[in-house]
Amino acid sequence: MEPLKKYKKEFPYSYTLGPFPTFELLSSHPKEVLGVYYSEEFREREKLCTLCEKLGVPCQPGQRVLERIAQKEVCYAAGVFRKYEGRLQGDKPHIVLVNPSDMGNLGTILRTILAFGIHDLAIIGAGADIWNPKTVRASMGALFHIEFEQFEDFPSYLERYGERREIFPFMLDGGTVLTPESCPETGCYTLVFGNEASGLPSEFQKYGKSLFIPQSDAVDSLNLAVSVAIGTYLFTQKNGR
Amino acid sequence: MEPLKKYKKEFPYSYTLGPFPTFELLSSHPKEVLGVYYSEEFREREKLCTLCEKLGVPCQPGQRVLERIAQKEVCYAAGVFRKYEGRLQGDKPHIVLVNPSDMGNLGTILRTILAFGIHDLAIIGAGADIWNPKTVRASMGALFHIEFEQFEDFPSYLERYGERREIFPFMLDGGTVLTPESCPETGCYTLVFGNEASGLPSEFQKYGKSLFIPQSDAVDSLNLAVSVAIGTYLFTQKNGR
Repeated sequence: MEPLKKYKKEFPYSYTLGPFPTFELLSSHPKEVLGVYYSEEFREREKLCTLCEKLGVPCQPGQRVLERIAQKEVCYAAGVFRKYEGRLQGDKPHIVLVNPSDMGNLGTILRTILAFGIHDLAIIGAGADIWNPKTVRASMGALFHIEFEQFEDFPSYLERYGERREIFPFMLDGGTVLTPESCPETGCYTLVFGNEASGLPSEFQKYGKSLFIPQSDAVDSLNLAVSVAIGTYLFTQKNGR
Repeated sequence: MEPLKKYKKEFPYSYTLGPFPTFELLSSHPKEVLGVYYSEEFREREKLCTLCEKLGVPCQPGQRVLERIAQKEVCYAAGVFRKYEGRLQGDKPHIVLVNPSDMGNLGTILRTILAFGIHDLAIIGAGADIWNPKTVRASMGALFHIEFEQFEDFPSYLERYGERREIFPFMLDGGTVLTPESCPETGCYTLVFGNEASGLPSEFQKYGKSLFIPQSDAVDSLNLAVSVAIGTYLFTQKNGR
């Protein structure tokens, strides 16, 4: 393997920067881990090395590597892992994000949907890179507990998963005002959310029963992670997971 | 006034960086605006200048000033405004944040509670600087529509506003699991949230009826802005604003 550099989207691998996501990675996807580096100052380095040895993962001190891949941030331990393919569960609820653009939001969304018991996420279009170390860190390791698939467009998603589930696009001009009472009861469902700045294109009205989270005119819109949180919370409360 | 510099917390004034928060500032707090600067490339500069003239606010081109105060970001217009004192409405619902540390979260929280119709926010302790241009920008101008007060500790808040309202601390070991059904009906209320990393100290159990947003063990906790969003959404749905 060539010397590790600052992360780029085209790399076939990515990094967990920091002990917490590195331990999460090791415990949930040990086979994808190519190596682990730690600082001599890291207090839990023995625990980390013991775990790596048990899993057959190379583990070594590497202050310079850490500085190079973590850029300006202090980083006591990091993992290098292969990007892997996920496969959504066909009979479980899904969250779909269309062209999300903010990596911090994406990480928060991963953490939030996992907290509410949803394990399947699809991303439509290029958008924010789910493997970027910033997203991994913002997800607090939740990324490793979620199945994730990327699709070129929404019809491609529907083709694979559209049967036997109801689709609910969240839109500012949504047809139903979403309240705890109006939240649909449904066997299996997909909640669809648009881009931070532009929302969902109007054509999404045709894909299902569009919903609107009631909000004051004093704001332009809700933050994307907040919208996903409200939608996911209400649907999982009403329908289970 | 001396030449404007990069924002510091101790300044008696702050900046709106970007046209959107600058227009929000001018429309909601014109008397606090000390001046407005714009880039010659800003397409809406005429609209901006006309508004400033009407309001008696100095408005001038200032590429160098913009570069200096906006640091590395591109900024087409900026406002300079005096930090002002707020006063919470005693008979309205409040949100209280105890030692919040993240300015992005704080901005998102301002935007979210305004979206759900709450206009009063107290911050306990030093914590994140609500006037920092980053917070102002993350709030998308919502800061200017919200009354805000800072208190040294929670008893000081209670002393001024504790009468005739119920207090609901949000805690990981909260006594009541918060669902749409269990969400309390109450005449007037205060929702209290702790720091991003440490939550609320256990003494907050004694201040009111503690609540827990149900979440999977797979995550450490919910993001603070997400917790505030869920709590505020449920309480405003159940109790009005």
